[in-house]
Parts: sequence; structure tokens; C-alpha cells
Amino acid sequence: MNPGDRIRLTHGGVENEGVLMPSSTPEYLVVKLDGGYNIGIDREEATVELLETDVYDVGDSIEQSSTDSQTQSGDSNETDDQRVSEIEFDDDLPTISLLSTGGTIASTVDYRTGAVTAQFTAKDVLRAVPELAGRANYRGRVVANILSENMDISIWQRLARAVYEEIEAGADGVVVMHGTDTMQYSASVLSFMLDTPVPIVFTGSQRSADRPSSDNVMNAVSAVEAAKSDCAEVLVCMHAEASDTTCALHRGTRVRKNHTSRRDAFETVGNKPLGTVDYEAAAEEGKDGAVATDAISFRRAYTERGTVELALDDDLEAGVELVKFTPGMDLAAWEYLEEKAGVVIEGTGLGHVHTDLIPRIETLVENGAVVAMTSQCLEGRVCDRVYDTGRDLLDAGVVETGDTLPGTAKVKLMWALANLEAPREGMKRSLAGEITEESQPWR
Amino acid sequence: MNPGDRIRLTHGGVENEGVLMPSSTPEYLVVKLDGGYNIGIDREEATVELLETDVYDVGDSIEQSSTDSQTQSGDSNETDDQRVSEIEFDDDLPTISLLSTGGTIASTVDYRTGAVTAQFTAKDVLRAVPELAGRANYRGRVVANILSENMDISIWQRLARAVYEEIEAGADGVVVMHGTDTMQYSASVLSFMLDTPVPIVFTGSQRSADRPSSDNVMNAVSAVEAAKSDCAEVLVCMHAEASDTTCALHRGTRVRKNHTSRRDAFETVGNKPLGTVDYEAAAEEGKDGAVATDAISFRRAYTERGTVELALDDDLEAGVELVKFTPGMDLAAWEYLEEKAGVVIEGTGLGHVHTDLIPRIETLVENGAVVAMTSQCLEGRVCDRVYDTGRDLLDAGVVETGDTLPGTAKVKLMWALANLEAPREGMKRSLAGEITEESQPWR
Repeated sequence: MNPGDRIRLTHGGVENEGVLMPSSTPEYLVVKLDGGYNIGIDREEATVELLETDVYDVGDSIEQSSTDSQTQSGDSNETDDQRVSEIEFDDDLPTISLLSTGGTIASTVDYRTGAVTAQFTAKDVLRAVPELAGRANYRGRVVANILSENMDISIWQRLARAVYEEIEAGADGVVVMHGTDTMQYSASVLSFMLDTPVPIVFTGSQRSADRPSSDNVMNAVSAVEAAKSDCAEVLVCMHAEASDTTCALHRGTRVRKNHTSRRDAFETVGNKPLGTVDYEAAAEEGKDGAVATDAISFRRAYTERGTVELALDDDLEAGVELVKFTPGMDLAAWEYLEEKAGVVIEGTGLGHVHTDLIPRIETLVENGAVVAMTSQCLEGRVCDRVYDTGRDLLDAGVVETGDTLPGTAKVKLMWALANLEAPREGMKRSLAGEITEESQPWR
Repeated sequence: MNPGDRIRLTHGGVENEGVLMPSSTPEYLVVKLDGGYNIGIDREEATVELLETDVYDVGDSIEQSSTDSQTQSGDSNETDDQRVSEIEFDDDLPTISLLSTGGTIASTVDYRTGAVTAQFTAKDVLRAVPELAGRANYRGRVVANILSENMDISIWQRLARAVYEEIEAGADGVVVMHGTDTMQYSASVLSFMLDTPVPIVFTGSQRSADRPSSDNVMNAVSAVEAAKSDCAEVLVCMHAEASDTTCALHRGTRVRKNHTSRRDAFETVGNKPLGTVDYEAAAEEGKDGAVATDAISFRRAYTERGTVELALDDDLEAGVELVKFTPGMDLAAWEYLEEKAGVVIEGTGLGHVHTDLIPRIETLVENGAVVAMTSQCLEGRVCDRVYDTGRDLLDAGVVETGDTLPGTAKVKLMWALANLEAPREGMKRSLAGEITEESQPWR
């Protein structure tokens, strides 16, 4: 039996049919079941019966399996890891570009170790999610193949350029498949780097495709439908509830992953999500390429498709740190910051740090750094006009960032220092929805 | 007219009666209104009529106003700033110790600058909250007078010792008045430092006593009633809702301030609060010293009064840092950590950092440090057995802390390194409710 053969598998009294997939370890069988999931089973514990030979082209999977995900990060050559794979083109359908950066949604189980490593091309994702067929023409592109905790500046820049190129080439929407760990940072930084006339929708998966509870199909389909919609913003599309009913559309600069493992881990901080996708209705409405205008709804105003001209400002200042203040913190933690162009502080409450840190911060500002204040509360806006400590921080030159989330403030400052004439002032203004309407901060 | 005189004040067409209070700035009148709030008004904009002289002893306020809050922090002498003020004692009432550390609940408006500085003794708080009268005998004690962002190890130790002494001296419960910014850190660290046979209830205020929307009366009364209850744990008692109906009782190790300004800013992460105080019912039930058993209810099991023997382990290891990982983080941020006894990482997702940091972490562990992993998701537990990065972190010697909150993990590690024979193992066990019941971390 060879990869691509259709087999019947009996294991622990349970019988399954599927296609044998390439396995990097001879003692394990990897089988793609008819439901779309991959399973890995000890060869010695299973009974296998050949049903049909060579029913499935696994060529790409083999090629992909032979590469090491760790070596495919930001250092690798663009021409090597950006494989554009165009699939049947229908003039009546919108064109959606699928950009893959790695992560669980683009991963399969690596049975060598029993856990998950990233090893799909965009084409593989399409194959793994047959529900995407017919909704759009797809352009698939692997921008990176990393676990998202390894995301860095060079990959953000490569991703932003890839999105720009896809839109310039005529994409009606872009879906970015991304690991969930740092999705909020990437969605935020792209919100600042790109002006876009079409939707740019990040999606990912909290459970890999081989798990019965995987969220990858629903998230991918919902993201594609959102990318066909009228909302020309950077969005994050993930499960809105524990059940498979609704996806939420979060504005990229206001979203955070607030649970380590739940499928509905992502939330818009301090508000309901910008929009929702009724999954079954959207899947039905959009299946012949139509836009799911009934099934996708928005609660608040958004930038409409075609109203903004495509633009890319992809410079980022690397010398920006985010520092979380906690009681008992060592002052030495602040010494390495003296060389930085920008520092974002995650302060307490309305935006405070220990009084003893204020002279340190003054030094940073005198050295020319932009020092921006956010709050570890996460909800609510900073306001340093109320208490002595806050006013002393303002006197030291700290800039308040309203209710900008700490991680968003970090990537915004990286972008602002590289692209704005007055980056300090820019941190006070909402550039991509990161600061919400002024509320009563104190009473 | 002098401080202590009763006056009628007309300002902007509104007439109020109250008592003139000492003001550090002659051009401002500070008046304690009959409702208990202080207001400050420009003398030139108000019409004032003397009603009665010397109705109110403002002697202590004057004394207190003349001290500078910034000089009263951890460096000051214990005999100076621990003023014990016993008030009428009734053998039929329980005895509650009120310990003040400063913060908004113990503050009044400082009209020199237009904002808030800490300047009350515990006795002043009693005077400011007449609703506390009759519920208990009170022992008042100023442990510190700081804004809570200035909280540090020495004040935590002083506070823990003061709580211990009060319980040893016969207090039936302790209320700690604390600034809200770092209340979660202080409640956590006291949870580890003290074994207690009586309730230790932290409370504070998000709005100062002179604001119409102040939460100080309801929080203080609810905290005193909780301190009379059967729950012998370290609790945080703050508004549960935007309205003045219910206070929540949060377990000290599971609580966080998750809004910069709302009165119901505090939440128990990942669950409903341990208990609730129906304010009006508790105020009624407890007014003659009775325990508000009907008005205070608990959702889950707790340690009952009298079942644990009083004990204090007040050593804390200062060399512990909490470091938040973000994409693009400078590796140099990790160099100053090499001297530390403990490092808590606020990783992404299930507990990850960039692969390049793993050798750094390995060095820390080889140097003898305990390196503990938490998640910036805040909800859900870390699990480093799923992805490559996580398993590499475990191999490097990182210890997982379940769903321990990052700030709680920091103070726990400070305590564990100073008091446990096997601090690393201790980080995996729940010692004071900081790790909740095992759930399915991944499926």
C-alpha cells in the first residue's frame, strides 16, 4: 500500500475508510478519513485492507512534509517559500487570495512527536476544506510557515507586501490564515501598514483539522464569505460562541485572544464585535459566489469596499518594547530600554507605575524616545490627569493612548515611528479604529 | 467662618448645607455635604451663609492634611504611621479591624492640584462612612498611606504582620482598605503569606468619596459585613454591577481589575465571583452586629471560619520578575533576568514564546532560577504539551502553572522561593485557590 491508496482501517474495534497519507515515521499510519480529518495510528495496532489504489494526489503533501517548518521562518528566501498556486478560474466568481502564514489552521498532526507542527501550503488548506469550493476563485500563497509565536517584523512586512500585491493584482478580498497566538498583533500591524479597498480577513483555528471539534472549516468558510463582503477593513474572523453557529468579525486593532484553548477565545475588548457571520446561512448564501449580505451583519459603521485607495507603508521601527509594570519590579528592567526609539508601558489602573520609575521614564523621553501609556486593565481608557502619579508621568513626557490595547499600541508605535512626522501625536489619535469613541473616563 | 462650622452654600443656583472643612488653598472652599460627600468650590463663585459654629471636630483631618502622602510610604517608621485608634467598644458586637493602606477609599480631593491624594487615617474613614456604625467594634490602623502603584514588598510584609497581629489580638475579621490599582497583587500575596481563621476582606473605591457616584460607602459596608461572615479567606469586595445593588466577593488569587474606571471593574477570571453581598439587605441585616447570613451568599465551597489555625510566613524573595512576551521583543530584555531567583513569563496562547528565547530560558534554569509559564490570554490554562515550542520550553525546565493569573504567579513565586522547600513543584499545586479545578485544556 502506498500514499494515495484508499483503505479500510480497523483499530480498537472501530472501522474507518479513508486515504493513506504520507507518514514520516514508518511505524505510524496517517489516514485522511472521509470526513476530512487526519488520524494517526500505530501500524501494529491496526488492521488495514486495501480498497483502491492511487485515488488521491498526495504529491504536494509529500513535498511539503519533507521541509522543516522551523527553517521556513523570516530568514528564508521569498522565491522559495512563496508558492503561488492558482486553481480553476471562473469569471463569474469573486477572487479571494488565501495567504498562509502557518499555525493550526494550516497544520496537520505530526505523528513523530504526537503533537502539531505546521506543514500545509495554501493549496492543501483548500483541499482540506472542500466547503470552500465554488464560493470564489482562489489564489493561494504561502507567505510563511511558522508557529505564530515566532512572528517577527520581517514576516509582517512580507505579509503586508503580499496582501498589497494580491489586491493590486485584482483580489476582491484577502484571507490570512494565521496562528492564533499572535493573530491580534499581526492584524493590528497590518491595519496600520495598509490602506485597503477590500476586506483583509485573518482567521485561524484553536483545534487542528484532525480533531473532531476542529473549528477550521467554519472559520475558513466564514472568513472567505467576510472577504467577499462590503467591509474593507482588517478583520479577525473566529468562532463567536462555543457552538458552531456564528463567527464574530472583530476589528483588527480591537481584538484579543482571551482564552488559551476555547474556540471562541477571541473578543473585541470593551464592545461587541463589529460584525457577525451566521455560518450556515452564509455558507448557503455564498456557495455560488454570491455575497452573503443577509447572513453577514455589522453592528457599527465600517469602511466600505472601494472607498479607500490601496496603499502600503511597510516601514517598521524595530526598537520598540512593551513593558508590563508590576509591584516589586526591578528598576534594572528599565536600563536596557535607554537605547529604544519607543516604549509602551502596560501600567496599572488609569495608567500608573511606581513613583520611583518616573525619573527613568523622563530619561527615556530626554533621550528622544516616545513613551506611551496603556493599562493592564485592558478595558477602559488611561487617564493620567486624575492622580499625582499620572500627572507626574505626563510631566515626564509620557503620551496617553486612550483605550488602545497594549499589544496594539506596541505595533502602532513601531509603525508610527517609521512613517509619521509626529509619531508622538499620532499615538493620541485613532488611525485604524484602535481608539474608540471618547467615553467618560472617570465619573 | 472656620473649619467645623455649619454653612449654607449657594453655587450655580444650587443650595447645599454642610460643614466647612480645612482647605490647603484659601481660594477654595471644601465642604462636607450632609450626604457625606466632600465638594470643593471656588470661593469667589459661591455665596456662603453661616448657620452654626463649631459643629464638627475636624482636628484629625487638619493633622492628616499637613502630612505629605509621598513621604509616608514603605520607608517610614512603623511607630510613626501605625496609629491605633480604638472607638467605643461593645461586648455584644464582633470586632473588625480596619487596616488602611491608602488609595481612593481613604482619600479626599486635594484642591491644590484639582486631583486626588491619599490623606485619611482609619478613624477618618469611619467618620466618612457613618453607615459603618453599630455593625461591629472597630480597630483602626494605618499601615501605609500610599497610592497603590507604589506598593512594594516591605509594605506587603508590614500589612501581613498587621493583619496577623489584629487577628491574634482577637479581631473577628479584617478589612483592608487598598488602592484599586494593585489590589489584586496584594490580595494574592496575603493569600500565600497568611493562614487565617477569619475573613480578610480587601476593599477600595474607584471614585473618591466627594464624587456623587462614589462607591466607597457601599464597598466599605459590604466589606465589613463580609468580614463578619463565615468565609475565612482573603477576599476582594467591590461593586459587582454598575448599579448600587450588589458587591462581589472575589477570591484574592483569582481576581483582576479589568477596567480602568468602572465601579464594577473587578472580576473573578474564568468564573463567577465566589460570593455576593446584597447591599441593602446586608446593611439592614448586619446593622446591630448580626452576621448577614441571608444577604451574603456563596456559590462555591470556601474555608469556613475557625477551621484553620492562624499562621504567618512573611518572607518574600525580591528577585522575581514578570516578563510579558510580545512579537519583536528584544532578546536583551532577558539579560538582566540572569541574576534572578525567579521569572514568570506571560507567554502567548497555551504558554509560548519565540523559539529564539528558549536557549535564554534554559540558561536561566541552569543558573538555578525557577521559570514559570502563564498566559497573556488570562483565561484558560497553559499547556505546553501540544506544540513544539511548548515541549521545548518544558525541556528547558519551564514549569507550567495551570490557570494561575500572571500577577498572582509572580507574587506566588516570590513567596514560594522564600518559604517552600520545593518552590518549583509548589508552582504546579494550588496553595490558595490560584489554580482552579482541572478542565479539558485543549479539546
